Amino acid sequence: MTISIESVVNLLKSHDNIILLTHQNPDGDTIGSAYALFFALKQIGKKAKVLCSDKIPSKYHYFTKHAVFDNFDSGYIVSVDIADTGLFGEQLMKYKGSVNVCIDHHPSNSMYAEKTFLVADAAATCEIIYDVIRALGAEITPLIADCIYTGITTDTGCFRYSNVTAKTHQTAANLIADGANSAEINRIMFETKSKSRILLEQMALNSIEYFYNERCAVISVTTQMIAESGADESDLDGISPIPRQIEGVEVGVTIRQKGENLYKISLRTSETIDASEICREHSGGGHKRAAGCTVHGTLEYTKQTILDSVKKYLV
Amino acid sequence: MTISIESVVNLLKSHDNIILLTHQNPDGDTIGSAYALFFALKQIGKKAKVLCSDKIPSKYHYFTKHAVFDNFDSGYIVSVDIADTGLFGEQLMKYKGSVNVCIDHHPSNSMYAEKTFLVADAAATCEIIYDVIRALGAEITPLIADCIYTGITTDTGCFRYSNVTAKTHQTAANLIADGANSAEINRIMFETKSKSRILLEQMALNSIEYFYNERCAVISVTTQMIAESGADESDLDGISPIPRQIEGVEVGVTIRQKGENLYKISLRTSETIDASEICREHSGGGHKRAAGCTVHGTLEYTKQTILDSVKKYLV
Repeated sequence: MTISIESVVNLLKSHDNIILLTHQNPDGDTIGSAYALFFALKQIGKKAKVLCSDKIPSKYHYFTKHAVFDNFDSGYIVSVDIADTGLFGEQLMKYKGSVNVCIDHHPSNSMYAEKTFLVADAAATCEIIYDVIRALGAEITPLIADCIYTGITTDTGCFRYSNVTAKTHQTAANLIADGANSAEINRIMFETKSKSRILLEQMALNSIEYFYNERCAVISVTTQMIAESGADESDLDGISPIPRQIEGVEVGVTIRQKGENLYKISLRTSETIDASEICREHSGGGHKRAAGCTVHGTLEYTKQTILDSVKKYLV
Repeated sequence: MTISIESVVNLLKSHDNIILLTHQNPDGDTIGSAYALFFALKQIGKKAKVLCSDKIPSKYHYFTKHAVFDNFDSGYIVSVDIADTGLFGEQLMKYKGSVNVCIDHHPSNSMYAEKTFLVADAAATCEIIYDVIRALGAEITPLIADCIYTGITTDTGCFRYSNVTAKTHQTAANLIADGANSAEINRIMFETKSKSRILLEQMALNSIEYFYNERCAVISVTTQMIAESGADESDLDGISPIPRQIEGVEVGVTIRQKGENLYKISLRTSETIDASEICREHSGGGHKRAAGCTVHGTLEYTKQTILDSVKKYLV
């Protein structure tokens, strides 16, 4: 069932030992949401901790380093920015059936939690978390402002994407007033690339292929390329926007090898084409302008499969 | 003399035939400011026009196309986002001594105008123009919102830089509520790379070399690469920040061939190294973090020459 912000606040206030779950391959929004809520819960005297199936990337160190988690086993389970239990990852799978509250902004949320607070037009879960923390009566400290700003700026490509609303900027204005180090956070998130990332970008650009009068561009990243470059998840995430950024390209496809005959496809589209609709044809999903799916087969088969689907939408 | 926003409004209201001046090599802020003010002045019944020494780039067409300038010769001269008359360019030089009002955000403004409305902590002149138009009593139409949003997003690198304040985001929130097509504008300004640019980037990344324990990275762009990619000046400008963005690199060097034995060097440095000092060794100059110089000789000679200079600064 879906619940209101007042219910979320009442539930958090009436429980202790709160376990905050983040999604696998954690990004700025899931981590920022969980840590912001963690620091707020500590402020109001709760025991709490953040869990993640994967290692949290070191670039988020500027706020993660300030967290000292409480030691407890069972507790009240709150998931943040997790649209489906499929994103829990191995370590968190045991919580699959026992999430008490989910706070999320993905319209595709599968309602796996007992109670879900979903704000589908929020640009980031962090935008919702800001309101939750305010409603909890906790102070937005500079540290909490940094966490929330991180989620908002990473999920909006630094206020660039169409998910940004007046409210997103209003929240950013408040966060800067609250002491968020916005410029420094943006430098870390957007202006620093690892050597592996540069190497992967080089390989990815070398792999570009154009289709359908250059209205579709495809980048292919093989496990060999990933190994050679030494790239990690966040490096890989940075590659997906590239093909769509090319002038005239309406559908940008990034194919990434996950196993011998297993490929993950990331799709980015222009205003007129629904990426999630194309990905649903392959049991995937996501947002209108950014979606994903998985295909079993060779790289050539995968490429042809997604190209066949894309073709139908290029009217 | 400096004046208040009330004075600006009174001056604009009490004059007609208003000539809006923009700076040479016009950017989003000067053009956005002038066109926003033009559309607002038309709303309140004034005759007005926008002048620029240079051609206004076609990428701003989404708002410039809606302007029909009035036909008149002499008028009340208002400059926007022009810090000094040295930026007027050839065509506007004749207005050098006769600017009635200057609206600007550059702390370095040389106070060349009869009256100056300077807000030095505004991220963009457009941020000031928003307040001026509101104070004029004109409506912020979606078209005016597009002009103003353009100036703010371009002057802040899409809300990325340290000039962004809570007020900047507050203005952006208002502009989106007023109907600015923020995502589309950001796509045009930041997310669209020509195919030539992508090709040049690919070649540039393939040319990367690391020196001095990877504290220095060098990209080489030959005239052959420029010709093969079909890249233009703005494509080339986009390449220079790349080497410095690599994690751990303190000096990023971009060497660009200008003739058979002529190379232009662009240097970007980290906080601790003065780029302009290094470039002065080769009769060049610039800012502390970004500077340039020219070297005569082969590519190998040029590379070794600049590397020898760089070495001295890598303590």
